[in-house]
Amino acid sequence: MIKTLAVVGATGAVGQIVLEEIQKQGVQYEALKLLASSRSAGKTVQVAGQDITVELMEPAAFEGVDVVIASTPDEVAAECVPWAVERGAVVVDESAFYRMDPRVPLVIPEVNPQAIAKHQGIIASPNCSTTQMVVALHPLRQAAGLKRVVVSTYQAVSGAGLAAQQELLNNTQSRLSGQTGSAAIFQHDIALNLIPQIGSHKHAGFTSEEMKMVLETHKIFEDDSIAVNATCVRVPVLIGHSESIYCETAEPLELEQIFELFRSAEGVTLIDDLPNKSYPMPRDCADQPDVFVGRVRKDLNHPCGISFWCVSDNLRKGAATNAVQICKLLSAR
Amino acid sequence: MIKTLAVVGATGAVGQIVLEEIQKQGVQYEALKLLASSRSAGKTVQVAGQDITVELMEPAAFEGVDVVIASTPDEVAAECVPWAVERGAVVVDESAFYRMDPRVPLVIPEVNPQAIAKHQGIIASPNCSTTQMVVALHPLRQAAGLKRVVVSTYQAVSGAGLAAQQELLNNTQSRLSGQTGSAAIFQHDIALNLIPQIGSHKHAGFTSEEMKMVLETHKIFEDDSIAVNATCVRVPVLIGHSESIYCETAEPLELEQIFELFRSAEGVTLIDDLPNKSYPMPRDCADQPDVFVGRVRKDLNHPCGISFWCVSDNLRKGAATNAVQICKLLSAR
Repeated sequence: MIKTLAVVGATGAVGQIVLEEIQKQGVQYEALKLLASSRSAGKTVQVAGQDITVELMEPAAFEGVDVVIASTPDEVAAECVPWAVERGAVVVDESAFYRMDPRVPLVIPEVNPQAIAKHQGIIASPNCSTTQMVVALHPLRQAAGLKRVVVSTYQAVSGAGLAAQQELLNNTQSRLSGQTGSAAIFQHDIALNLIPQIGSHKHAGFTSEEMKMVLETHKIFEDDSIAVNATCVRVPVLIGHSESIYCETAEPLELEQIFELFRSAEGVTLIDDLPNKSYPMPRDCADQPDVFVGRVRKDLNHPCGISFWCVSDNLRKGAATNAVQICKLLSAR
Repeated sequence: MIKTLAVVGATGAVGQIVLEEIQKQGVQYEALKLLASSRSAGKTVQVAGQDITVELMEPAAFEGVDVVIASTPDEVAAECVPWAVERGAVVVDESAFYRMDPRVPLVIPEVNPQAIAKHQGIIASPNCSTTQMVVALHPLRQAAGLKRVVVSTYQAVSGAGLAAQQELLNNTQSRLSGQTGSAAIFQHDIALNLIPQIGSHKHAGFTSEEMKMVLETHKIFEDDSIAVNATCVRVPVLIGHSESIYCETAEPLELEQIFELFRSAEGVTLIDDLPNKSYPMPRDCADQPDVFVGRVRKDLNHPCGISFWCVSDNLRKGAATNAVQICKLLSAR
């Protein structure tokens, strides 16, 4: 049981789902505090039938708080997470800011719950595109090892916030009316288009989003030898990241074994019936907590090669759901 | 100089661009015949400022025709192509029906123009998703060999015809109005969604579209040992297929060599300046004849691994432009 739980960024796209998931997952707390920037402080948010006034996120607001779930941009996390830690709180942080810090465990409860024990006040939740891929690869790796991954993503706009969803809708309406849309949040107009850039240039031609998929996968699996090659692409979809994943295990697996591993894996739902046009699609997977897997195939040439298609709600398992799961594990300790 | 050139399927999405490309590429002919099914026969089409009445596609319509460019569904090609061949014409066929026939050369003029010489009346133009990939891989293969390809596609709806474009527009308008759209041409509503199925189940969990990318690549490169692993996905884009391509050459190439190979390759345009948000996108590549390449990176682990992003107008280089290029080569012989 948590005494005082604080949710930072409570009015954002992910923060709203954090509040929903806290109730859904039955996280027990005595008091709930909602914190946000001055833009949202003073607003009233209903949680479990109760009106709660959003308070200003400032150092003193974290006095007496035991656990924090923070859904903010990196630069906000850099500033406010230490305020909470200094006052004795444990912070589950969804930003990228602390993820690669060696003192901060990077946790997916289905994959590495044991890492939580090592925390020094901060536990990070991985990037949305990493989380769903690692949840899906985990059962394969446990059964047969994992040597390499080639992943191409098809990422929804909601990863960039509520305003990004509105930008897609507005620009799509403009295009349908024969006009051009403007790009404020994205690099280019995303309506009926694709943008092969998420984040900024980071390393050797790879973007920051692509390097997150490499480095976070290494950290969660505690194995830097896995060769991860990622291409991250923004697509005109509101909610739900999709990934075309090719991987090579260390030992060969039969197709029926792979199906069985996905069927019995925690947090994974297998939808794979191509003749009946059944496979995961972002529209069907939005608002669902699981990682959906389908189109499973063995490489036609490599005995250890496996291809599959993976979809998950980037705001849920990719963010809020995973953070609340960590919070629940923490409160059960 | 061709005496009588016939265009079959002249009123379709690709057929209209074939007529445009014939003028653009300066194909020389004395007479032009437009043929179509009974649904379109009798319509008038303007070509180079001249009104031409579309004639019914029937056996006798091919009397006296020297060269045919056919843009029809597979089942129509199966029926009408022999009518032309029996009457002495050479047919450039864009359907999939004859592509894997050992008597039929499968030709991309930038890659294997020499294969045309072996024709026995039919020359096939490859599948749209194969063509752009092979054009981009060709300079790398020439310089350093090619061992494997892992490709994930992001394919526009126009590959499925004019009605498919209308279905995307109508369904998108429905979604924006808070209603659901119906799926007539696609397996599911494609608006603001992704469908990881193009074609039907073909082999070992792979779709017909995915197997085309394997088998056609082998045939064009005359090398069955290249390990091709494809995942084909429909995206809500009107025109322009995109592909996330990972390949391994036989010998390592330096990044600067790869850039230079793409820069000097026939039919390829390199757009690669990530810090300035510059890379190929379907919106910019529509109506262009080239294959656009960008986001070029060397694998972080494998010395022969290369990732890049490839976009091309699926109705142009992926269909009409390539077929007219073949026709032009043929008329120059």
